[in-house]
Amino acid sequence: MLLRCLHRAAFASSTLHSAGQLRLFSRSAARCIINDDFANRHIGPRRIDKQLMLDFIGFQTLDDMTNRNVPNLIKLDRDMDLPAPVDENRMLKEIQEIANMNKVYRSYIGMGYYDTIVPAVILRNITQNIGWISQYTPYQAEISQGRLESLLNYQTMVAELTGLPTTNASLLDEATACAEAVAMASRAARRNTVLLDPLLHPQNRDVIQTRSDPLGISLGELDMDRMELSNDVAAIVIQYPNTEGCVQSLENIVAKAHENKTLVILVCDLLALTLIKSPGDLGADIAVGSAQRFGVPLGYGGPHAGFMAVADHDGKKSLSRVMPGRIVGITKGANGERALRLALQTREQHIRRDKATSNICTAQALLANMSAMYAVYHGPKRLTEIARTIHKSAAYLSSQLKAAGHQTIHRDYFDTLKIEVKDLNGVKKRAEEMKMNFRYFEDGTVGVALDETTKAEDVADLIYVFNGVKADVAVVEEAIFEQASPLIGNSEHSRASLFLEHSVFNTYHSEQQLVRYIKRLENKDVSLVHSMIPLGSCTMKLNASAELIPITWPQFNGLHPFAPLEQAAGYQKIFSDIEKWLCEITGYDAFSLQPNSGANGEYAGLLAIRNYHRNTGQEQRNICLIPTSAHGTNPASAALANMKVVVVDSDRHGNISYKDLVEKCEKHSNELAAIMITYPSTHGVFESSIKDVCNKVHEHGGQVYLDGANMNAQVGLCRPGDYGSDVSHLNLHKTFCIPHGGGGPGIGPIGVKKHLAPYMPGHPIAPVAGRTSGAVASAPWGSASILPITWAYIRMMGNSGLKKASQIAILNANYMMKRLEGAYRIVYKDEQGLVAHEFIIDCKPFKKTAGVEVVDIAKRLMDYG
Amino acid sequence: MLLRCLHRAAFASSTLHSAGQLRLFSRSAARCIINDDFANRHIGPRRIDKQLMLDFIGFQTLDDMTNRNVPNLIKLDRDMDLPAPVDENRMLKEIQEIANMNKVYRSYIGMGYYDTIVPAVILRNITQNIGWISQYTPYQAEISQGRLESLLNYQTMVAELTGLPTTNASLLDEATACAEAVAMASRAARRNTVLLDPLLHPQNRDVIQTRSDPLGISLGELDMDRMELSNDVAAIVIQYPNTEGCVQSLENIVAKAHENKTLVILVCDLLALTLIKSPGDLGADIAVGSAQRFGVPLGYGGPHAGFMAVADHDGKKSLSRVMPGRIVGITKGANGERALRLALQTREQHIRRDKATSNICTAQALLANMSAMYAVYHGPKRLTEIARTIHKSAAYLSSQLKAAGHQTIHRDYFDTLKIEVKDLNGVKKRAEEMKMNFRYFEDGTVGVALDETTKAEDVADLIYVFNGVKADVAVVEEAIFEQASPLIGNSEHSRASLFLEHSVFNTYHSEQQLVRYIKRLENKDVSLVHSMIPLGSCTMKLNASAELIPITWPQFNGLHPFAPLEQAAGYQKIFSDIEKWLCEITGYDAFSLQPNSGANGEYAGLLAIRNYHRNTGQEQRNICLIPTSAHGTNPASAALANMKVVVVDSDRHGNISYKDLVEKCEKHSNELAAIMITYPSTHGVFESSIKDVCNKVHEHGGQVYLDGANMNAQVGLCRPGDYGSDVSHLNLHKTFCIPHGGGGPGIGPIGVKKHLAPYMPGHPIAPVAGRTSGAVASAPWGSASILPITWAYIRMMGNSGLKKASQIAILNANYMMKRLEGAYRIVYKDEQGLVAHEFIIDCKPFKKTAGVEVVDIAKRLMDYG
Repeated sequence: MLLRCLHRAAFASSTLHSAGQLRLFSRSAARCIINDDFANRHIGPRRIDKQLMLDFIGFQTLDDMTNRNVPNLIKLDRDMDLPAPVDENRMLKEIQEIANMNKVYRSYIGMGYYDTIVPAVILRNITQNIGWISQYTPYQAEISQGRLESLLNYQTMVAELTGLPTTNASLLDEATACAEAVAMASRAARRNTVLLDPLLHPQNRDVIQTRSDPLGISLGELDMDRMELSNDVAAIVIQYPNTEGCVQSLENIVAKAHENKTLVILVCDLLALTLIKSPGDLGADIAVGSAQRFGVPLGYGGPHAGFMAVADHDGKKSLSRVMPGRIVGITKGANGERALRLALQTREQHIRRDKATSNICTAQALLANMSAMYAVYHGPKRLTEIARTIHKSAAYLSSQLKAAGHQTIHRDYFDTLKIEVKDLNGVKKRAEEMKMNFRYFEDGTVGVALDETTKAEDVADLIYVFNGVKADVAVVEEAIFEQASPLIGNSEHSRASLFLEHSVFNTYHSEQQLVRYIKRLENKDVSLVHSMIPLGSCTMKLNASAELIPITWPQFNGLHPFAPLEQAAGYQKIFSDIEKWLCEITGYDAFSLQPNSGANGEYAGLLAIRNYHRNTGQEQRNICLIPTSAHGTNPASAALANMKVVVVDSDRHGNISYKDLVEKCEKHSNELAAIMITYPSTHGVFESSIKDVCNKVHEHGGQVYLDGANMNAQVGLCRPGDYGSDVSHLNLHKTFCIPHGGGGPGIGPIGVKKHLAPYMPGHPIAPVAGRTSGAVASAPWGSASILPITWAYIRMMGNSGLKKASQIAILNANYMMKRLEGAYRIVYKDEQGLVAHEFIIDCKPFKKTAGVEVVDIAKRLMDYG
Repeated sequence: MLLRCLHRAAFASSTLHSAGQLRLFSRSAARCIINDDFANRHIGPRRIDKQLMLDFIGFQTLDDMTNRNVPNLIKLDRDMDLPAPVDENRMLKEIQEIANMNKVYRSYIGMGYYDTIVPAVILRNITQNIGWISQYTPYQAEISQGRLESLLNYQTMVAELTGLPTTNASLLDEATACAEAVAMASRAARRNTVLLDPLLHPQNRDVIQTRSDPLGISLGELDMDRMELSNDVAAIVIQYPNTEGCVQSLENIVAKAHENKTLVILVCDLLALTLIKSPGDLGADIAVGSAQRFGVPLGYGGPHAGFMAVADHDGKKSLSRVMPGRIVGITKGANGERALRLALQTREQHIRRDKATSNICTAQALLANMSAMYAVYHGPKRLTEIARTIHKSAAYLSSQLKAAGHQTIHRDYFDTLKIEVKDLNGVKKRAEEMKMNFRYFEDGTVGVALDETTKAEDVADLIYVFNGVKADVAVVEEAIFEQASPLIGNSEHSRASLFLEHSVFNTYHSEQQLVRYIKRLENKDVSLVHSMIPLGSCTMKLNASAELIPITWPQFNGLHPFAPLEQAAGYQKIFSDIEKWLCEITGYDAFSLQPNSGANGEYAGLLAIRNYHRNTGQEQRNICLIPTSAHGTNPASAALANMKVVVVDSDRHGNISYKDLVEKCEKHSNELAAIMITYPSTHGVFESSIKDVCNKVHEHGGQVYLDGANMNAQVGLCRPGDYGSDVSHLNLHKTFCIPHGGGGPGIGPIGVKKHLAPYMPGHPIAPVAGRTSGAVASAPWGSASILPITWAYIRMMGNSGLKKASQIAILNANYMMKRLEGAYRIVYKDEQGLVAHEFIIDCKPFKKTAGVEVVDIAKRLMDYG
């Protein structure tokens, strides 16, 4: 033990400059003795196994191996400057202190985010249960029936509440769902103009703008009073209820739009839909929104499940065929029994590549499951009761404010009031005293959005903040109970159609029943709790319990994404640490944490390149070179960023064909925007020419986009920012321990070199000085609430642990390669006969000799765990 | 919904006096609308099911049914005065505030309790996992192989560390383990004197005294220097290391004891045993102790697993035959495969009744499993490393204190120093400043016990507290690393024997491997997560997630049981609330929460009766009447309290035969100490004569002990304290939602009428004014850290929910009875043809007609969940 410790201590000390070297050396050594070594717990093989594997492939140490493996030209020849690792106990203490820097005010800001109560049974048995959060995307239906059933429940829930029949198994968030809907509508209607309700939530408007621009969709303002639509208007987009809380009558507007063959997209609040007419009732074509308030914490912005539902009425059946995202469908198993699987996959980018309708890949399966279970647990009656109580509380509050002389702007509302107050400064002062956040409009009015957590005490406090008079809680409670409700009963807005009548929403209302249902589904699936998963296993990491503990703390869960920055000091510390550490790990100069999936990060990165060219007078640069071996999401993202894809060949080692690259660069020199490379390649090889490739592209004025999916093989060994890449996205849900959640959440932050930094995603509510680009996600820092996982992982691994994790991944792959190379042909190796963190075996001969297909081998691997 | 709400509101209001009635009425009504109703979530059957069942058995409402069922004479004709129920969200807020009243100081008090680090993987996947905590005791081996394997690991761990071959699957705590060892030794040696090391932990001494007295064992002081043993000394009991931290050489002492055929009982510290000679190495006969510091939080005293291991050397094989507690053994399944089951059950009280060696029943399976997994995760190397670091930290601290002029009393120690300080007041002042607790001896010396959580920063702070000088953490860290260690290497105390060499302790050292092992075991078992469990199901309640959340909060977990009372204000609030509420529920005047199992509560209750008689000059009263139908623990407990059991017959309804009772009372009038009754009877009947029975026993000077195991059928309907009982224990792990943990923890508080209150358990460290009895458990408030579960349950159920839970239990039983009575003979019913919360069917005919035994039916029930 001692020997290893000193060895590691030597690592740590070499990053130091002269002063203090002895101290850090010895502290580090002492830590080895006192602390439980997280890296050893995290990285599977034991020391003896490691040595046996190294012997087998012919190396003495991990460093010997990676010194051979990683091309000299790009090798990182120093340790990463990261804080010395700590054990899980100390990490938890540190992050507890950081969490305590956040101030959890009561937030009545609204704007698409509402506080909610996560039923403890769901929190414990789904959110905190590794058996529900560690699965891979359900590509392999036979080991995913549990999740698929839950996702089907999500789809059913969305379909029933929106009144539209076809839905998908979640999107990234409400704003990207809006943008997806706009792109889909434009494509379906073959028209290029979309008109936006001026009262969309600002982030929805912003992401629509970001995404529509490269697609050539022109946006305009919707005038709902006049409804004058030219015949190139593909769709109108309306927030329902709108961002000021107003519930409008939309029947005439829908009718006028349909007269013009214009599609109607409603951005709706799922909970409001239990009381007010559904998009289906109103005849709308597309409904999008967020399921956040169905039992998923605010979490400073995410992750939450977005949703989309589309109509199937005459002439528009095509919508479901072009809908983005994954769809769970019912099919029949080999023995005729009911089974579930992903449906209509031919729409997706891994098949259609740059012709795909969307680049969405990871969605928000875990969050969709939480929301679906929330609906399963509450059922239609209790959901309606929750909505009624919120609405009646808002109605009572409104009456009290009016009685005190304030004006409420809108007559019809669900949970949100817009108020012209008598004494704004007084309100602000008392709001601070009561630790309450509101939406302060620029015109001096105030927005107040109530939610499921709003109790009589809170309403009494709200009355105090606005009226300056303490209200009696008991009186308030009684009054809310007695409050007549404008939306309930015979209002023009009232919903008459039934919903959630399926037995799944009417059975599991006691905790006992729900917990058994949850466990039944859990045990149908294979997750990391059971075994490795053949597909995607190269990207799966242990999701350590200690990393997951902080994410359900109220100090991280309770913050509204648009709460004042000074209330989120803990979050800002997490963000700045991660940004700093990721810069050190990758060699980039700046990071944006906003993109909430790998594909979204890819898109944000390409957009940065696009905006860079536009701002440097090179608008004509729109060619994106993509090697044959690239993941289908690459061309799909390039297409979304309005780039034209040109394919580059690869050689027999799986390397990019340098010759072909040179030809393509020269041919498209004036239009070359970028190259997208995966490194090490998806064929599992460290290409030695990577630096030349980058130089060549730069020579011709292009930018280098390096797909970070395989960063796992590079951490501590080489850095994209050093060998010529300009921008990458990282998959935190791969390399940095965010659990896959059975198909999301994912986080895809982008790192860039300095010249691209101004073009990273901005945000209308939390603008960053010097950034000019629009937002790519609803929340300024994307899926903020799960970033503590990555923080914890890096904090506990440190330089030595992270590097060792990369080396062991490479060792495992090379060991397996050597073991199998007698029996199988290894498709690609590097010049040293080594592979990186993965490799491909050739199974074609078996088909001829034994009729065995690749898929048969994969299934067999699953059968034997 | 409204109707039901008002109905419940009516309940609430009727408990009120005139003033404020309207307000409470309406608040309660409003709550129904705003809150999620926990009772409805908790109690299984839906409204419609409930009505169908009532119709089937011929009643309109639950009240109609229980009005008929519960004898008029004992019926509670008002609502219980409990706070109005709240939903889980509000409950969690309230208990968070209570938790925050506790102050978590760093505790270096020692005395058998040491802070520890619960590995996050164990916390998440065992402690917080309903699949591991909700199982019943593993009587049914075929659905318990997972837990049995883990308990076998516990036994192996204890056997290996103590060096003694035969162990059991946990005892209640260290002090009761001491008392069990003393009783066993006296029985095995057929001698009546036991000598105690004066330096036992005080609570160990106290519980030994409490328990030995009724058994007629006389205790004396052990003089280890002279070792003069008379030939009636059955055993000597030595704390190792002793309560002052001293590690003594025991070889000569063991030899002298054995010369005298006296057994040697060592009370040991498991972690110390990784470094110092084991009891087996020393030749001791019995080892007992607590496995708390193996990954189970301090929790203000419990629950923790106690352990016992016994030698098997020549002539003493009998020890394993008389060892108390449950033993897991390896056997063969029907197909010859390895299987696990409870072994040697013939020792236990359900077979031997008053001849049993112990009344232990529930033990600490869950905590034993946590400790076993801690050893599985760390393995022998890391355990030794943990122990070494603690020891070296203590050695370094000792050197620093000596250098500053303090005296350390003992030369050889593991983790605990006893210090004669220069300036006690200064130390106390700085200790308060640094929020540190020590053991302050009466002679002015100070005890400091280090533990796994003690880092260099803590040692630096300790140096500051004693020496008044701030130490440099880095220097301390280095010094601890370099510290020579008296116990490591060639010391006379050093352990040479190997331990934990079995592969289970050398395989699962990465989190991935451990989590899969944990899940593999979990999924072998049937728990409440899967289905009901045929045996004991009448006593199983849902363990709601919300109830379980607070018990792993640091504010509850981090307190040492002997921390100053003012640091435990939150705990004291929980205790006083529960005591008050249980008094209201049962009609008793006072409660003690100390007994940490049902059997221990029973024993404490009988002891209260015994001490009451002794203190009122009625020492001769030693007859305990017990009906034929009683649980085997009843006679075993009576025997332990030195009472003679006289059996009373029961009639064809399952009622106590009043005639036989009168006869027995008259016959033993002068010696009558008590009657033990289970009510409703284990035959499932509300006996209408219960009041007469109580009166008759009182007439003859006896006390009534009512077994609270079936309190579930009475809550809100009738109260033992009203109809004549003097004392009961309640099984909080049955009626009040403490999870069974697969065979513990349990909590068995006792409620008494006023005259018995002075005879409830006391405690040497936390004496209660007016109480004269000794302790029955290690910690003053027993298993304090899980009491929040019961608090949360009562808080969320309130009067109406609790009453309804009882009524639904009775409804379910009567519905099943009516359904089955065509096909089966119901053995016992009451005069109305009804049963209480359970009933017995006669399966004897099937044996004749079809060769089917009761056990076959039970297995079949399991097979079909």
